[in-house]
Amino acid sequence: MDEKLLIWREEVSRRVFECPVFSIRESRCRSPDNGQGTFTVIDAADWAIIIPVVDGPQGRRFVMVWQWRHGARELSLEFPGGVFEHGEDPAAAAARELREETGYTPGKIQKIGEFSPNPAIMSNRVHFFLAEDLVNTGKQELDEDEYVETVLIDEDEAVGGMGRPPYIHALMGSALALYWQARCRDAD
Amino acid sequence: MDEKLLIWREEVSRRVFECPVFSIRESRCRSPDNGQGTFTVIDAADWAIIIPVVDGPQGRRFVMVWQWRHGARELSLEFPGGVFEHGEDPAAAAARELREETGYTPGKIQKIGEFSPNPAIMSNRVHFFLAEDLVNTGKQELDEDEYVETVLIDEDEAVGGMGRPPYIHALMGSALALYWQARCRDAD
Repeated sequence: MDEKLLIWREEVSRRVFECPVFSIRESRCRSPDNGQGTFTVIDAADWAIIIPVVDGPQGRRFVMVWQWRHGARELSLEFPGGVFEHGEDPAAAAARELREETGYTPGKIQKIGEFSPNPAIMSNRVHFFLAEDLVNTGKQELDEDEYVETVLIDEDEAVGGMGRPPYIHALMGSALALYWQARCRDAD
Repeated sequence: MDEKLLIWREEVSRRVFECPVFSIRESRCRSPDNGQGTFTVIDAADWAIIIPVVDGPQGRRFVMVWQWRHGARELSLEFPGGVFEHGEDPAAAAARELREETGYTPGKIQKIGEFSPNPAIMSNRVHFFLAEDLVNTGKQELDEDEYVETVLIDEDEAVGGMGRPPYIHALMGSALALYWQARCRDAD
């Protein structure tokens, strides 16, 4: 692969829209063969998705959350997650988000990968964590406009259900791909 | 799970930004306990991601494409994909996108799942297809501002590489999750 034939260079960038969750930039770029193009980029905060695993007599189960999603206008069954606060250590942030959203605290939490949620139009990153040795404190700390219901879901059910309601969130599929990758690595 | 405790109702929605790839709406909603909230939603076209598999003497390999991504400002190694044209049959659209971007035509193409790319802030859908019995015509048909390089990647390399450069695109992880799900279903 010859990088020079693919890489664009940014010439000018200007903000054209702003809202509490993201802002939008127009980026004027120079193509590999010196043509010009203008692209629209969404800037938003990095965030974490946490795969919390309960491994007990009933087999491997995930702590997941039901919530309403305003983009899709649907109920969605997801792994917990949330936005990093400024300067926060990523693993500490992931543990905090897990505790606030579900009431579970992890004895062990490790990063298993990082993706761009959509590198074509978004500049931020989503960081994935595996959380184990969980303790249920029974105490959620939800934001004022956050309504979630925590459930335990069998691993097989989540794996088999992805890509159909209520497993509608693509990034939960990304999370499972990294989860299996980590499990295969551990098994080697 | 009691849906009534989670579902919001939309009251008013108005467009606040528009660009060639997407538009943005402010959606004022009523919460499950009758509070109010305003959410920002990105509307964009549905699109397809295609997992093209070459199964031959060198084992199972994917047809993948290198391309520059303007959001992440990075080179990304991805499955091919593209936006549906108005009224187009999804499987036909996926086969067309595969052919245009890589020059490969599929003898067999089947849908293996559908996700919201990010149901929190996006209203569109991404449809995933498995393409097999591929023939390489050697003829790409790229858009004017599209620079891609097609390569064959071993299944194990893609699976093991996800979540680290150059496998930075989260939806390629989602694609692999659905690919494994389909393979497990076929094996049953």
